[in-house]
Amino acid sequence: MDVLFTFVPKENQQERLQAEFPEVTFRFLYKNKSFLPTADIVVTYGEDLTADDIDRADNLKWIMVASAGIEKMPHAAIADKGIIVSNVKGIHKTPMAESALAHLLALKRSLPFIYESQRNGEWNRKTHSSELAGSTAILFGPGAIGSEIGRLLQAFGVRTIGCNRSGDKAEHMDEMVSFENSLTALPKADIVIAVLPSTEETHHLLKKEHFQAMKDDTIFMNLGRGDLVEDQVLLEALETGEIGQAVLDVFEEEPLPLDHPYWQMDNVIISPHVSSHSGKYVERALDVFIPNLHDWIKGATSPSNPVDMKRGY
Amino acid sequence: MDVLFTFVPKENQQERLQAEFPEVTFRFLYKNKSFLPTADIVVTYGEDLTADDIDRADNLKWIMVASAGIEKMPHAAIADKGIIVSNVKGIHKTPMAESALAHLLALKRSLPFIYESQRNGEWNRKTHSSELAGSTAILFGPGAIGSEIGRLLQAFGVRTIGCNRSGDKAEHMDEMVSFENSLTALPKADIVIAVLPSTEETHHLLKKEHFQAMKDDTIFMNLGRGDLVEDQVLLEALETGEIGQAVLDVFEEEPLPLDHPYWQMDNVIISPHVSSHSGKYVERALDVFIPNLHDWIKGATSPSNPVDMKRGY
Repeated sequence: MDVLFTFVPKENQQERLQAEFPEVTFRFLYKNKSFLPTADIVVTYGEDLTADDIDRADNLKWIMVASAGIEKMPHAAIADKGIIVSNVKGIHKTPMAESALAHLLALKRSLPFIYESQRNGEWNRKTHSSELAGSTAILFGPGAIGSEIGRLLQAFGVRTIGCNRSGDKAEHMDEMVSFENSLTALPKADIVIAVLPSTEETHHLLKKEHFQAMKDDTIFMNLGRGDLVEDQVLLEALETGEIGQAVLDVFEEEPLPLDHPYWQMDNVIISPHVSSHSGKYVERALDVFIPNLHDWIKGATSPSNPVDMKRGY
Repeated sequence: MDVLFTFVPKENQQERLQAEFPEVTFRFLYKNKSFLPTADIVVTYGEDLTADDIDRADNLKWIMVASAGIEKMPHAAIADKGIIVSNVKGIHKTPMAESALAHLLALKRSLPFIYESQRNGEWNRKTHSSELAGSTAILFGPGAIGSEIGRLLQAFGVRTIGCNRSGDKAEHMDEMVSFENSLTALPKADIVIAVLPSTEETHHLLKKEHFQAMKDDTIFMNLGRGDLVEDQVLLEALETGEIGQAVLDVFEEEPLPLDHPYWQMDNVIISPHVSSHSGKYVERALDVFIPNLHDWIKGATSPSNPVDMKRGY
């Protein structure tokens, strides 16, 4: 059996794989797809496969995506060939939830001001710090990541409102509301956090009216995908003071163009799509992949975290 | 009855007091002590009373300190006159615990790097972020504030070791150790947090050997009092790489002198004694003071959070 990684795990991680699966031929080749035609399984970050690649991958039966975002994959080509796709959804929740809380607490506890004062050599105690406790947060997309953020927010005494398609119950949410009814909940929120994937339904889901419904000191944080809101709509909400602050990990165009107004705006934090980064990332992906590969070798064809290429998540 | 505030609450807070206690004469005078001789009760941040003040305060029976630190008060003079002292210990726990978590998460999730990249107009994804989850933290002083920090750390999947005089159990600590035995626990800790008051016992409690016992990537955070460790000892630990990073809210000399090496050190965060700051501070102090004053007027003489002027906390 041939397994092609299109990224290169650390040496000890490669050794771990070889030791677990002496019968498997592993190839670890950074963005090099020359072995694709003979690979039975591909492990990828999900951004490097084209429809042509899928076409010539004659043996390919399973694509394991070591990431959560699969919108750059050639969905139709993969679905047509009946290739199984799985991802590692759950492994992002810890670093992403820590990033969300880091940004919120940093703003509430004035860390940008504290860092700047130090840089200027100033002992300046006029921090105007406030507290996260007692806030209300809306979470668009209370799935694995969103509910982990919800769990931590609740520990800080934050009231959580989950917002999903159906409005059905989600974990660690004090209240639920459907996408359709989100306008009724937004005026209550001090914090709006989005961790939605990019699908037809979430594309430009948030519109001018949503930002108008938010409090004028709302912190809006997008850790999901940049096409949730049209750039011009968010820019205007920030420029006109319809909301207070944005923490953006994702953008309509990435990398964010160097001439984009966000770079100069005091009320925007630009996080360059790094909220899921973690030194523990590949290790955890292997923790998901290894048992799945054992099962696969024994004949199973349903790895954990399957992704429906037609639905898109 | 005369109540002198040596700081000035907001207008609506002053009105709240007058409305609750129409029979009381309140004076709100910023650092002005001319009414001290006739005051029955003084409400102070605890930094503005001298032994002389106490001497001429003929009517004074109760000092309410709207702060936790009482080391700048004239302990002997107050104890000699039998004046009751109480503070608002508990009200610091929320902002201080949020500050502690803000600093830790900011470091783990690379916020200083993210902010700096934005300032430089750089889309730089080489954050080298790690996670708070899975760390071990030692808390020197697992009291009201320390155990609140412990509660939040545990929510993030951090193992907590409390360290106090006796080594007796404290809330939200997975393990306990006494001051005397702290050297045995320090090598296990990724994070060392101190929230100790300044007493004879805690003065220079941490010595060179304690920093030598820490891991060389330990984050040391002091939110208690600056005399916990001699400046030269901490500086050397940071300069020689015995520890990785310090987050300091308190210093042996405050304000931190402008020529102090900390200002220029990449592995030191200078927080100018602001970790307890909060827009909700005075409101919460009044929430403690008002019921105590009602009881006092009815003849009670034991307000909540009494402070023993002889013991020092």
